[in-house]
Amino acid sequence: MKIVVVGSGTAGSNFALFMRKLDRKAEITVIGKEPTMQYSPCALPHVISGTIEKPEDVIVFPNEFYEKQKINLMLNTEVKEIDRGRKVVITDKGEVPYDKLVLAVGSKAFIPPIKGVENEGVFTLKSLDDVRRIKSYIAEKKPRKAVVIGAGLIGLEGAEAFAKLGMEVLVVELMDRLMPTMLDKDTAKLVQAEMEEHGVSFRFGAAVSEIIGSPVKAVKIGDEEVPADLVLVATGVRANVDLAKKTGLEVNRGIVVNEHLQTSDPDIYAIGDCAEVIDAVTGQRTLSQLGTSAVRMAKVAAEHIAGEEVSFRPVFNTAITELFGLEVGTFGITEERAEKEGIEVVTGKFKGSTRPEYYPGGRPITVKLIFRKSDGKLIGAQIVGGERVWGRIMTLSALAQKGATVEDVAYLETAYAPPISPTIDPITIAAEMALRRFR
Amino acid sequence: MKIVVVGSGTAGSNFALFMRKLDRKAEITVIGKEPTMQYSPCALPHVISGTIEKPEDVIVFPNEFYEKQKINLMLNTEVKEIDRGRKVVITDKGEVPYDKLVLAVGSKAFIPPIKGVENEGVFTLKSLDDVRRIKSYIAEKKPRKAVVIGAGLIGLEGAEAFAKLGMEVLVVELMDRLMPTMLDKDTAKLVQAEMEEHGVSFRFGAAVSEIIGSPVKAVKIGDEEVPADLVLVATGVRANVDLAKKTGLEVNRGIVVNEHLQTSDPDIYAIGDCAEVIDAVTGQRTLSQLGTSAVRMAKVAAEHIAGEEVSFRPVFNTAITELFGLEVGTFGITEERAEKEGIEVVTGKFKGSTRPEYYPGGRPITVKLIFRKSDGKLIGAQIVGGERVWGRIMTLSALAQKGATVEDVAYLETAYAPPISPTIDPITIAAEMALRRFR
Repeated sequence: MKIVVVGSGTAGSNFALFMRKLDRKAEITVIGKEPTMQYSPCALPHVISGTIEKPEDVIVFPNEFYEKQKINLMLNTEVKEIDRGRKVVITDKGEVPYDKLVLAVGSKAFIPPIKGVENEGVFTLKSLDDVRRIKSYIAEKKPRKAVVIGAGLIGLEGAEAFAKLGMEVLVVELMDRLMPTMLDKDTAKLVQAEMEEHGVSFRFGAAVSEIIGSPVKAVKIGDEEVPADLVLVATGVRANVDLAKKTGLEVNRGIVVNEHLQTSDPDIYAIGDCAEVIDAVTGQRTLSQLGTSAVRMAKVAAEHIAGEEVSFRPVFNTAITELFGLEVGTFGITEERAEKEGIEVVTGKFKGSTRPEYYPGGRPITVKLIFRKSDGKLIGAQIVGGERVWGRIMTLSALAQKGATVEDVAYLETAYAPPISPTIDPITIAAEMALRRFR
Repeated sequence: MKIVVVGSGTAGSNFALFMRKLDRKAEITVIGKEPTMQYSPCALPHVISGTIEKPEDVIVFPNEFYEKQKINLMLNTEVKEIDRGRKVVITDKGEVPYDKLVLAVGSKAFIPPIKGVENEGVFTLKSLDDVRRIKSYIAEKKPRKAVVIGAGLIGLEGAEAFAKLGMEVLVVELMDRLMPTMLDKDTAKLVQAEMEEHGVSFRFGAAVSEIIGSPVKAVKIGDEEVPADLVLVATGVRANVDLAKKTGLEVNRGIVVNEHLQTSDPDIYAIGDCAEVIDAVTGQRTLSQLGTSAVRMAKVAAEHIAGEEVSFRPVFNTAITELFGLEVGTFGITEERAEKEGIEVVTGKFKGSTRPEYYPGGRPITVKLIFRKSDGKLIGAQIVGGERVWGRIMTLSALAQKGATVEDVAYLETAYAPPISPTIDPITIAAEMALRRFR
């Protein structure tokens, strides 16, 4: 069997490795535009800050690793067209026949139509090349004032990296808060306060209308000119759908797939940032542009091609970040978005400590839980705290993935040890508060 | 309504507080032998090591806190008898009438019949007074060699505390490994290695037959005399059942209760270390002598008395400890015990890192998962690692509590960020390994 993957990022690379494990004999070819296989886009801000030394360090495996597993690599290669009739991928280096084709074509940074967005000193933060460009610009120009457009994860992590390098950082966000798709206003404010304490400023409900100078000297926000000698555009990503469209596959905001991740052509799969999957809370189609989702899709697609009757489960988009030592974890729907979607919710919120009072080193933690009123199910959570947020958001996400209700969380058996956690965990207290509103 | 609680420990104190929240008018009385309300027995080793400064620091709330909430405290008080006919508790300070009675009488350290066990310098580690005695003995005699009898949680945490104070420590355990009820031999060895690196020695399959000298000078193990100037007896605890027995309540290894935590007399509840509850894996009666179980039982008993139809769910005994910076988390059944109980299991084990390779600071972590062969359900886990073990054992325990199968764990959506966790988490890899054995 000839299996061809278009895309050498997280989804494509992991797919090739999973597929090889499941099928020792298949001919597996990965066609990629970049010269290397997967690296972690989430690690890029840490390369800018210098926590990770060299850009190349984030490449997960060298190309030889794949070749040793008899995965054919066609890198630095552009796909021109897919001929579904003849089952061939047409590239700038020739045709590649397939029995099964996997589109792992990823996403690209969305660049808003701002005047001057192409000027020198204006960057996106999506690829290794972006990081190389930013690092050499910083080394050369020693910028002192950075403006970040967009307060999503990449924007905030970029802002943190710039601040760690000693720059003055201003984040400009169109919405009324940071991480607007992941946090409600109350929890977003906790993150904002921590970042402000570390010298990052914010402008909400504001937009950059123009970038002035090349190299950049200032940005225009409303009538005001704000000095800036580095601008990061972090206004989200868009699924790469052009190739799929041209191929005649069903496309929406992403490439439409069924539960086995097959596109409208059952011999063509789509995985990773480009694939449109199902939101576990709303049941609607959604783009889950997370590294973990890419890996999980890669696994399901490989297993399905290998003949297993597996399905990709609807996504809760469980995510975590660390900003200046503060951990922020989320999944599911925010209270605000639930309201917009017409989902009635009951929330529980508790601010406590990560350890018992008598044990040194405890840090504040705020847990906000969102339950659906109609059936009591956990459909979202937001946690902001000084430590062990990952464990708590994972616990809650795992519960939600198993359909847990407010009772399940309130009566949850937790693990306690004085250096690690309190006897009554903040997550169960938050649930208890919600439970009282249900009763 | 007159509600009387016998026992002022974690279960009794928390019950009184929960009950007060649910019923503003009830007359609540706590009868306790000790002069204070709840403190954390799990915190006591940390008082010995000096991490927690004063023994009194581990008292959760001062007595006045309870009195302000109109909880009557009868401390330093001994219960002589319970007259179920007249519904009164007879104490050395008079009779106390009740409508509902809650037995939260706890457990006591089990003292094996070793010659010399009453000698000076031989201690248990169960109460604040134990800690005060140990601390003043250490201050006075400056012991240099400690022998700990028993390699359960308290024994190991005591051993760590003594080692941190600069003592040479030997742990003697009858079974063939440390934490024998919580860990299998393979995972126990990882903990042993770490403790040995910090100067703690072990003798397994061995028993102390005699304690020589008062103050202690040596212990006898087989024919050998091992020098020791402090001995900690940490051979487990036994439920306090004498009062319940005398009262004519059904008693087994602990006080027998139904799912609402009522004893054989429906007006008398039993909670905490003294109550025998249901093991979630075997369905058998068990003693869950954990602080978290005590608090959860307190909550359920209070709510049931307040008229809610709540049940105490079977226990997985999720537990966590930290020894010399190594975290150890467990729940459910071990592979070895499953075999003894005739439960066929499929296991998955994986040793990985807590962070992606390219991000500095990752530490080794070993995850062992135990699934029931008949239905694929997760029935136990053991994790030993350098960080974030708590979050992983909690995630897995939460999944088990919701009846998760090997597929649920293998396909779990996890949260990823380079400073915090890898894209493919060790828990899902361990599950995948088990899943392959199922397929």
